[in-house]
Amino acid sequence: MRIDIITVLPELLRSPFEASILKRAIDKGLVEVHLHNLRDYSTNKHKNVDDYQFGGGAGMVMMVEPIDACISKLKSERNYDEVIYMTPDGETLNQGISNQMSMLENIIILCGHYKGVDQRVRDHFITREISIGDYVLSGGELAAAVLSDSIIRLIPGVLSNETSALTDSFQDNLLSPPIYTRPSDYKGWQVPEVLLSGNFAKIDKWREDKAIEHTKNRRPDLLE
Amino acid sequence: MRIDIITVLPELLRSPFEASILKRAIDKGLVEVHLHNLRDYSTNKHKNVDDYQFGGGAGMVMMVEPIDACISKLKSERNYDEVIYMTPDGETLNQGISNQMSMLENIIILCGHYKGVDQRVRDHFITREISIGDYVLSGGELAAAVLSDSIIRLIPGVLSNETSALTDSFQDNLLSPPIYTRPSDYKGWQVPEVLLSGNFAKIDKWREDKAIEHTKNRRPDLLE
Repeated sequence: MRIDIITVLPELLRSPFEASILKRAIDKGLVEVHLHNLRDYSTNKHKNVDDYQFGGGAGMVMMVEPIDACISKLKSERNYDEVIYMTPDGETLNQGISNQMSMLENIIILCGHYKGVDQRVRDHFITREISIGDYVLSGGELAAAVLSDSIIRLIPGVLSNETSALTDSFQDNLLSPPIYTRPSDYKGWQVPEVLLSGNFAKIDKWREDKAIEHTKNRRPDLLE
Repeated sequence: MRIDIITVLPELLRSPFEASILKRAIDKGLVEVHLHNLRDYSTNKHKNVDDYQFGGGAGMVMMVEPIDACISKLKSERNYDEVIYMTPDGETLNQGISNQMSMLENIIILCGHYKGVDQRVRDHFITREISIGDYVLSGGELAAAVLSDSIIRLIPGVLSNETSALTDSFQDNLLSPPIYTRPSDYKGWQVPEVLLSGNFAKIDKWREDKAIEHTKNRRPDLLE
């Protein structure tokens, strides 16, 4: 899989892709992540990529021209399955979308910044608009990192133990049951006895019951 | 405001706080962000902070002891309004929560990693569990960065133009109307005439209509 991220702040995105699971996935050749500085595609001397909005109002707008130049160059080099724009008014990301996207070959992710992009970018270049949640961030960069992370960890071979991803919350519409590790007694706080019993049928049953109970309490909407 | 982030991967979190709005907020002294490497609080030789789960199963569990040590040290130095755990089964973050949290003085954010933390951490140290959305990430670090970003940009003085945050999506339960900047004609794609009219009453009306129309199409749930 190849992910091309277009941003005015490539430096913000460096460390998330240089650590942990994402770094290992890149090192293993399971995914390529390319950061493109939108300023490199600016056509004016000052490397501007934003301008005042028509009709007045606070906040700058990302111009259509540099975005067109960058996306068009990438598209001339290979085919893309999706050109995604990260925006709080997009479709809300969920595990199903991440599962589906982890099977794509090439995607472009455009990070909004300032007040957002010129509407003509959304009308003519973007194939899918995604939000990571109902809150506003100072830019789309962290959202792009979140989307990338949620996708990349699902690519076969990325997680060292594949069953680990399958038992995550949301993969079966159930939240995870409580988990414990040593010591079995910490300051008088005990690990539930069943987990120490060695009776795996009982443990499975306990975990399933707890997962259902936890989901009922916290997220009854997932059970509907 | 002071934010203490406890993580096994402090290096993953560096660049998001060293760029853009978050950096400026830190430089201006409007917020302090301290990253704590959980391994520094490990009590064993190998600096382990995780262990196998009781009852078997894939994935490692973060141990209670180093987390207790780190949180207890921080709490001995100052009072905290909240000790937050980032987890996909927490309360789903929204703009209202971010608004509210931007008024707090000191918060701790604990990043989950591996399969998550020992349940006793959640039972005895955590005051609030937050999810940034219904998807699984390889760790809580990006989620902590997202939460921090959504909060920090709301602290008065952080955004250069305060009206800019007030007209964001979600602050009035309406999505933003379309925005445009120069050129007014790009490859035959025109900016709506009303925005070029100079008639600000008409422009305001157009924007309100478009915001309502856009919200009805995309997120009718916000209007309920």
